[in-house]
Parts: sequence; C-alpha cells; structure tokens
Amino acid sequence: MQKFNRNQRITSITKILIENPNKIINLNRFTQLFNAAKSTISEDIVVIRETFNRLSFGNIETIPGAAGGIKYTCGISKEKTLEFAEELCIILQDKQRIVPGEFMYISDIMFNPQIIQKAAVILASKFNKDNVDYVVTVETKGIPLAYEVAKMLGVNLVIVRRDNKVTEGPTVAINYVSGSNKRIQTMSLSKRSIKKGSRCIFIDDFMKAGGTALGIINLLKEFESELIGIGVLIDNIGTEKKLVRDYMSIIKFNGIDEEDNPILYPDKSFKK
Amino acid sequence: MQKFNRNQRITSITKILIENPNKIINLNRFTQLFNAAKSTISEDIVVIRETFNRLSFGNIETIPGAAGGIKYTCGISKEKTLEFAEELCIILQDKQRIVPGEFMYISDIMFNPQIIQKAAVILASKFNKDNVDYVVTVETKGIPLAYEVAKMLGVNLVIVRRDNKVTEGPTVAINYVSGSNKRIQTMSLSKRSIKKGSRCIFIDDFMKAGGTALGIINLLKEFESELIGIGVLIDNIGTEKKLVRDYMSIIKFNGIDEEDNPILYPDKSFKK
Repeated sequence: MQKFNRNQRITSITKILIENPNKIINLNRFTQLFNAAKSTISEDIVVIRETFNRLSFGNIETIPGAAGGIKYTCGISKEKTLEFAEELCIILQDKQRIVPGEFMYISDIMFNPQIIQKAAVILASKFNKDNVDYVVTVETKGIPLAYEVAKMLGVNLVIVRRDNKVTEGPTVAINYVSGSNKRIQTMSLSKRSIKKGSRCIFIDDFMKAGGTALGIINLLKEFESELIGIGVLIDNIGTEKKLVRDYMSIIKFNGIDEEDNPILYPDKSFKK
Repeated sequence: MQKFNRNQRITSITKILIENPNKIINLNRFTQLFNAAKSTISEDIVVIRETFNRLSFGNIETIPGAAGGIKYTCGISKEKTLEFAEELCIILQDKQRIVPGEFMYISDIMFNPQIIQKAAVILASKFNKDNVDYVVTVETKGIPLAYEVAKMLGVNLVIVRRDNKVTEGPTVAINYVSGSNKRIQTMSLSKRSIKKGSRCIFIDDFMKAGGTALGIINLLKEFESELIGIGVLIDNIGTEKKLVRDYMSIIKFNGIDEEDNPILYPDKSFKK
C-alpha cells in the first residue's frame, strides 16, 4: 500500500474529526487507514490541534487509556459569535417578516443550513462538557437547529410530537399550558426514545414565556430523566413573565417599533 | 501577522470546505486568512483535492472567472455505500421494531446524526450537478435527512406542513390522497418559502405508494416550480403500485417474514 505524506494525512484526519464531533476516535483507525506509526499520527494531530486553537475552530482533546483516542469538540470565538448574532439581527430586522399577531416569519433562517450550522456551534459549545445524552426539541421549526446541536455533541436527537403517530409504538403524553396564550396543549413522545436516567438539553427556535420548555421538563420526568439546559436562537423578552429561568439565547427580540420593524439585538450575556 | 505553514493552511482549508459544501469559495478568503500568495493556496488545494479523490471523500472543483474559486462537493464510493446500507439493514432487522399495522419504528435511526450524515452524502451525491434550488420534505421524521441533503447541496430546506401555522404568513394548501390507505390529507406551505421557477428535490425517510411524493409534485406546481428528483432512505417494495416512478432509495423493505422480522436489503440499483 502506498503511504500517505503528512499533508495528505492532515487533510484526511481533519475531515474525519469534523464529521465526528464529540466522538472518541481511536488512533488505530488512522494508523490503519494511512499505514503509519502511532507517533507519526500523534504529530499530525499536534499540528491540527494547534491550528484549530489558533483560529478558534474548536478543540482536539486526547483521551488516555485503552478506550481512548482523540476527540474534536466544536468551538467559536466570542468575536465570531457576536458578529454572527449581529448579522442575523440585520437579516431579521425587516418589517416584511412580521405576520399578524406580532409573530415573526423565520422559516427561511431556521431552514438555512449555513446559518443553522453556526448557531448550533454557538449553542453546542456551551454543553460540550456536560455529558449530554440527548438533545430534545418539539416539532417543527427548531428541528434542524436541534439536530445540528445533537451532531456537535455526538448524541441522538429526540423529537417530541404534538400528535400521536402510528409508527412510534407506545407513547407517553402530557398536557401543558402554553405560557403566552394559556391554552392547554398536548405533547407526546415514544416510550423507547429516551433511556431512564438520561441528561437532556432542550433546543428550540424561539422562546416566548417558556411554556413549552416547562412542558419538556415535565415530560422528561415521566422518563425519569433530567433537563440540564435550554438553548434557543431567539428569545422574546417582551413577554412579562418567563416560566423557566436558566436558558441561553443568541438573539433578543423585543417586539416591534412604531414603524413596525422588529427590534432585535445580540444576547450580550452570551459569554464564551 | 504570523504566517501559517502548509500543514496549518491545509487543515484550515479542509475544515472550511467541509463546512461549506457546494458553495464557491473565492481564493481571496484564504489568501487573506493566511496572508499567503494565491499560488501558495492553489498548491495547498491540489494536495487536498488529490487526497479527497484517493479516499473517495468527494471532489474539489475549480471554478474559473472573477466570481470563481473552489467548491467542495460530497461523494462516497460504491463500496462504502453498500457497506453502509448493509450495516443499516442489520440494525433494522429486529422484530422489536415492528409496531401494530406492519409499521417499523425507525425514529432512533432518523434522529441519529452519524447515520443521517452518511445517508445524506449518498443521496446528495446524486444531485450535485443538478442545480437544485431547494430540498423539500414533509414534517416530521425525514427532516434531519432532508436538512443534511440540503446542506450538502448548499441550498435551503423547505418543510411542508400538515397543518397551518400562525407564524408562516399566507400559505398555499392542497389536498392529496395517500397512496396506501386512500385517505384524503392536506399539505400546506408558506407562500414565501419557494421562489417561482425553482428546481426542487423531495427527500423523505420512507416511501410506501408514493402518495406524499405525488402531493409534493402538485404542491410545487402551485409555486410554478418543478420536482426534479426524489430520494428516500427506505423504500417499501411490498406496496402493489407506486404512484411515482423515478426515485432513489438506500434500503428496500419487503414486509415481515414468518418470524415477524422485517425483511430488508440494500438497494443494489443504487449506482455511483
């Protein structure tokens, strides 16, 4: 077998790491793929790690032991986070987006992979060290964002449904009161989707009063599991009272101004 | 500014390319980031391209002209595709997955980022050259797969809804007959989600008779847009008559055997 030189190994290892965030990859995988010594691969990884650190591209950790290897975790600088949030505010500050009821049309943003990928890195980088087992969301608009966060954390996504689907097998359903309009709603989840004793985070596109998040906390109790974090893209701070306290957001939305333009700004409390 | 050496540039360029599939990236971005000459960057790219080709990691194209640059498109070998399909069949061949009505529980698969990422590369690599404008799916289970395909093709995802949401603004709704149980159902889509004259592909988790796909074709007509391709993870070939003809799948599902185990095998017609 023809050997690979350092440049070739580095481009390949980078690709494999980027596509497997938060997963431990044993160095044997690389020694076999490239027919190279472990020490050679270790040197390659030093180069990749230093470059990633220098450009705030995330971290590459070495995990010792027989089951060890290397693990890439996503990351982004404070400056890039702010820059992203500011750009997003400009895109969203458009009166055309306001639909009757002071709702904002954001589907084009939530379904834009380049935007969602960056937003997911910002949110996921807060939970890299929290041993998250599942990323939970409620259908529909937040699914791509929650999926990307799950990918970055190397875990499965769980989608809570509004209705009961024939393909899900036995489900657990709860009723909850939406915080903003006080209506009773139902959410259901397949019994086999979450293992007992799991640590979950809830990711969504938009938070108003937080009624959905509170519903998720109660639903997870039925699975003897715990919600350890909440992250949303946009936080509506015009809501009088929030039903949940600890959560993170990327952008704050504070209603519309006298010219019907949405008022938005980056969440500055969002620290690295 | 401190310079970057070749190894460092290569790991960074690889990361940027992988995170921006099917997007043209001007070389100026790299010359500025690394404070390097265009000829130097071009040499870096030759290394990355050759390595990607050698390992069937996808292609890196050079687009000439002022608006040109380089573009990464995803790819996977025929062997890896078959290997993936075979592994997936083994995971799915489990009688525990069969729920009443001969439905199969596949949410754990559809919401597993590592599996979905690979499936998306297989499907997207068929459409890299088709100038796709949008990837369309119907809520809910196929969303992560459709999102990943959209990302690989560098376009936006479009999610067709079963109901009418207050946040979507004016919508277009059509009725369609589901192919397997002949029930009339509704699908709706926000008017602003697709531009007139677009070329779309439909991606979903599972195809039975293809009634949903036919519905999408009709819905897109209302947007004066065209469906140019269909891709699903699992094709139920136990269905008597398919309502659509041209589509691709990764796995074939042929009902259950006398021991209630699902019968599954890789779609061998799936050529590179």
